[in-house]
Amino acid sequence: MALTGPIVLTDHRYGKAENRVVRFYKENARHEIRDVNVSTTLRGDFEAAYTEGDQGHVLPTDTQKHMAFVFSKKPGLDTIEDYAIALAKHFVDTVEPVASARIDVDSYGWQRISIDGVEHDHSWARVGPEVRTAAVTVTAERTWVIGGIKDLVLLKSTGSEFNGFLTDEYTTLAPTDDRVLASSLVVQWRFAETEGVDWDEVYAGIRATLLELFATTYSKALQQTLYAMGTAVLERFPVLAEIRLSAPNKHHFDYDLARFEIENKGEVFWAADRPYGSIHATLARADAPDAGIAWLP
Amino acid sequence: MALTGPIVLTDHRYGKAENRVVRFYKENARHEIRDVNVSTTLRGDFEAAYTEGDQGHVLPTDTQKHMAFVFSKKPGLDTIEDYAIALAKHFVDTVEPVASARIDVDSYGWQRISIDGVEHDHSWARVGPEVRTAAVTVTAERTWVIGGIKDLVLLKSTGSEFNGFLTDEYTTLAPTDDRVLASSLVVQWRFAETEGVDWDEVYAGIRATLLELFATTYSKALQQTLYAMGTAVLERFPVLAEIRLSAPNKHHFDYDLARFEIENKGEVFWAADRPYGSIHATLARADAPDAGIAWLP
Amino acid sequence: MALTGPIVLTDHRYGKAENRVVRFYKENARHEIRDVNVSTTLRGDFEAAYTEGDQGHVLPTDTQKHMAFVFSKKPGLDTIEDYAIALAKHFVDTVEPVASARIDVDSYGWQRISIDGVEHDHSWARVGPEVRTAAVTVTAERTWVIGGIKDLVLLKSTGSEFNGFLTDEYTTLAPTDDRVLASSLVVQWRFAETEGVDWDEVYAGIRATLLELFATTYSKALQQTLYAMGTAVLERFPVLAEIRLSAPNKHHFDYDLARFEIENKGEVFWAADRPYGSIHATLARADAPDAGIAWLP
Amino acid sequence: MALTGPIVLTDHRYGKAENRVVRFYKENARHEIRDVNVSTTLRGDFEAAYTEGDQGHVLPTDTQKHMAFVFSKKPGLDTIEDYAIALAKHFVDTVEPVASARIDVDSYGWQRISIDGVEHDHSWARVGPEVRTAAVTVTAERTWVIGGIKDLVLLKSTGSEFNGFLTDEYTTLAPTDDRVLASSLVVQWRFAETEGVDWDEVYAGIRATLLELFATTYSKALQQTLYAMGTAVLERFPVLAEIRLSAPNKHHFDYDLARFEIENKGEVFWAADRPYGSIHATLARADAPDAGIAWLP
Repeated sequence: MALTGPIVLTDHRYGKAENRVVRFYKENARHEIRDVNVSTTLRGDFEAAYTEGDQGHVLPTDTQKHMAFVFSKKPGLDTIEDYAIALAKHFVDTVEPVASARIDVDSYGWQRISIDGVEHDHSWARVGPEVRTAAVTVTAERTWVIGGIKDLVLLKSTGSEFNGFLTDEYTTLAPTDDRVLASSLVVQWRFAETEGVDWDEVYAGIRATLLELFATTYSKALQQTLYAMGTAVLERFPVLAEIRLSAPNKHHFDYDLARFEIENKGEVFWAADRPYGSIHATLARADAPDAGIAWLP
Repeated sequence: MALTGPIVLTDHRYGKAENRVVRFYKENARHEIRDVNVSTTLRGDFEAAYTEGDQGHVLPTDTQKHMAFVFSKKPGLDTIEDYAIALAKHFVDTVEPVASARIDVDSYGWQRISIDGVEHDHSWARVGPEVRTAAVTVTAERTWVIGGIKDLVLLKSTGSEFNGFLTDEYTTLAPTDDRVLASSLVVQWRFAETEGVDWDEVYAGIRATLLELFATTYSKALQQTLYAMGTAVLERFPVLAEIRLSAPNKHHFDYDLARFEIENKGEVFWAADRPYGSIHATLARADAPDAGIAWLP
Repeated sequence: MALTGPIVLTDHRYGKAENRVVRFYKENARHEIRDVNVSTTLRGDFEAAYTEGDQGHVLPTDTQKHMAFVFSKKPGLDTIEDYAIALAKHFVDTVEPVASARIDVDSYGWQRISIDGVEHDHSWARVGPEVRTAAVTVTAERTWVIGGIKDLVLLKSTGSEFNGFLTDEYTTLAPTDDRVLASSLVVQWRFAETEGVDWDEVYAGIRATLLELFATTYSKALQQTLYAMGTAVLERFPVLAEIRLSAPNKHHFDYDLARFEIENKGEVFWAADRPYGSIHATLARADAPDAGIAWLP
Repeated sequence: MALTGPIVLTDHRYGKAENRVVRFYKENARHEIRDVNVSTTLRGDFEAAYTEGDQGHVLPTDTQKHMAFVFSKKPGLDTIEDYAIALAKHFVDTVEPVASARIDVDSYGWQRISIDGVEHDHSWARVGPEVRTAAVTVTAERTWVIGGIKDLVLLKSTGSEFNGFLTDEYTTLAPTDDRVLASSLVVQWRFAETEGVDWDEVYAGIRATLLELFATTYSKALQQTLYAMGTAVLERFPVLAEIRLSAPNKHHFDYDLARFEIENKGEVFWAADRPYGSIHATLARADAPDAGIAWLP
């Protein structure tokens, strides 16, 4: 098949990625910190930049960088969701060629240093590895907010099996009644509502729910665990329309000590790097508003 | 808005990621090497694993791993595209619950060690950083093949400007008639045809075209350069339906030496890490067959 | 100068790096976890392997891997220091050609998942980024233990200045009375004693001391802060002979908002990646026992 | 043992790490590129910065950054060795408190883009993964130059065995007459001479020698291969005093296809990540000048 039709620019976008903004609140001696990584992406009437090299509609990514910093000052970074909404709206409202703006924010955690139980006013230690995320998309008509968490590394030492699976001529895996279950979760949730939401409270609640369900679900497979986590989150937070969970199955293999006449009763494991299982699930409320372009990168 | 509708599993997939397969051909003393990273992803009738913990339909990812290695032996890894097609078809054809299979392959380059101009039979040095990629999706009815290259790092020391752009109150960037243009490209091309294609020849031709157009296009913006690259590839390879290009604008800033009374005529630059511009373009033939699920991850 | 003397093998070592050992204690329903990365290094009479290809003295690194796992079972991984001492002694005592053994251990932190304030018996979330380290060296005559912490990321939003520095014709930096101080610390401490030490208690105490001094020291330079941290640790823990601190100065630059007529009173910063300052200090007790080969890699 | 002696600052150093300098030569239409990562480290009379917070002797790392860029303009980056020598001497000669300066340079490779066999004047593609390195140390009296290469990834598909090794109760490894040998080499060589050396010619010769010996040495162990490489380099380049080789043994495990009744005659391997063997060797000429502080970091 030799195609001869005209060549068309079918999609395009541009922006400034990974602006490392650190914002302090210093109203009094007890400072507050916000440490974020902000990426801006614009879609709209920018074809001429591609086809003609005409920059007349192109707001420089350098300007977008400035905006990421300026907006951290005012309206500020009280929550990453409101910050991202404000920044996205600014682009849509003030830059004529912009049809939609997408703002991605990663937010890094810091814990106040405690000395003899007293929290310090202006000193912190980083906590992680987990990172809070937000992805906001704005058009002239609508706003979509996706909250999230990534690099949330969880492990349980029992309460997980893998049995009764399909087999074929290439299947050698032995069923197991007791294994280690471990993953590094990436979870994103789309809000049905984008105004009047207590973003921090919802985030804390979802995080606690994810941890709780991971711990308390007797797992017949990582798939089941993800489904239980997703279902509980949607049930407890009716403000959510949809949730997406991605989870590597970080394999822990029993180390064979029997060859050395040592018993290994689920005590010694080798944590493998690659390959790893890769499990994904999306759950949604049947009455959820449509996702529109919320998930476009 | 408080949603009350039933919770639905709207999407799911699973597989084994990053199987590091190395395959040698040893028909004679002059060995051949294929060094790949293979990920398998299955979609289909696997809901019960999520909702009930019932693995009856689930072919273990451990079995998928075995298949990735087995298929490197036969039919073999002559080209990554044919290998991925065969592996994907195997899953669709022999594993009843599978509706579609996606195989992703990264292929690492090796160059024979030369001694006094004579290539060695069985010793190589890695070359890179660029990586050749393939992403094949197969259903009972259709096959899609996406070829690609990633981590292709290119730079030109002149022949690039950035002028006449949109400005607003937050724009401070000075226009420039001469700058460094550098990027680390990720490019993927979708084939209109999946049989009878000389994958290696097309790959070599596309790679050469990308390099040529990067070098010879006088650039008014990275957008324009990407468009020129994409257009030339589609024009020269009518077997292609579509091409997607993603490119960070790896900024090189003139280092201010004037403050030390030293002239810097475009000679000394600081290569910055973050933030960076992020430019994306998709071009397609108007008469291209539809992409279907080819771009689903 | 053309050298003509004989070529001599002046140093050599070998081992198995990055054994990812996970050890659970399951005496009762409340499990315990140890998650470590273990590297073994042997020095001794292995010249013939290099010069003749004679493996007669070479214990395979595969065997060393087995030992790293076996020793996690018994004597076990109660503390990484005692585990490493036992493993190192095993090599020195039972493998005839071994003159010295070095064991490096990285220990990753896990926190029990809490549900309504109740800690779960067998489920954890990873905490970090900080990693506890140990480096133990054993010969037939002596044992050296080096404890440590790495990737300890600290930041203070005030209480740091940089003034009165040396200037030359290439100095453009403005003195500052108030800046952000941030670093990602690597600290190692050598024990004067290797028996009867409560490793966990000392570790917790040193960690708390490092955080406290970082927070409470008014900093005239990162050098001064490191010195204050090191001095306090040695003073509070007379069981220590020496402490080494390495610290990148992770620069946070005031973002210039004045050009947009916005005041930035130490509130908005750009966190830069590269380049970064790099500061190192070693402090020791004058009456410390000699380090011998403790710091050999 | 409770130590009570005074606490002494026994070692310290500071500098600016990872200055990403890109230098072009544009004497005519055919430009030249140098792409380097430069780190400066100063030792000397800086105790007061640590003990008193007195910066009077401290040349800011910001100034050191400027110097890294300034010196790329003049004397320039013709070779990284001469550049580093000049930069180090500048610090020692003009900054009074400096006792010694160490300059580390990583140099990234670029290849001109060729179009129909014609090299382009000002466009390049990155080549790697290998990186050329230099580490220069200068005092008022002496200069040491260490050249090097890192991330040189080599593999041979036969011509490697591992036999006749020491065994103990924990040894399960089977001897092998034919295996894959692969590594990612870090090699550094210390020059006996620091003037009048053709740095580029020596580098090219050493690189070729390393590749040749890796390919042509029938390997009874990675140790033997390293020794052969090191010996050949010292023999061919009498200007060298010493060479250090570090090499992970990147294990490639035969994939067991026999369980599927498929023969695997050294054709299909799994490339493992961790753990890996870790082999190190240092060779020197017996009549080499002393290393002094050349290897201090």
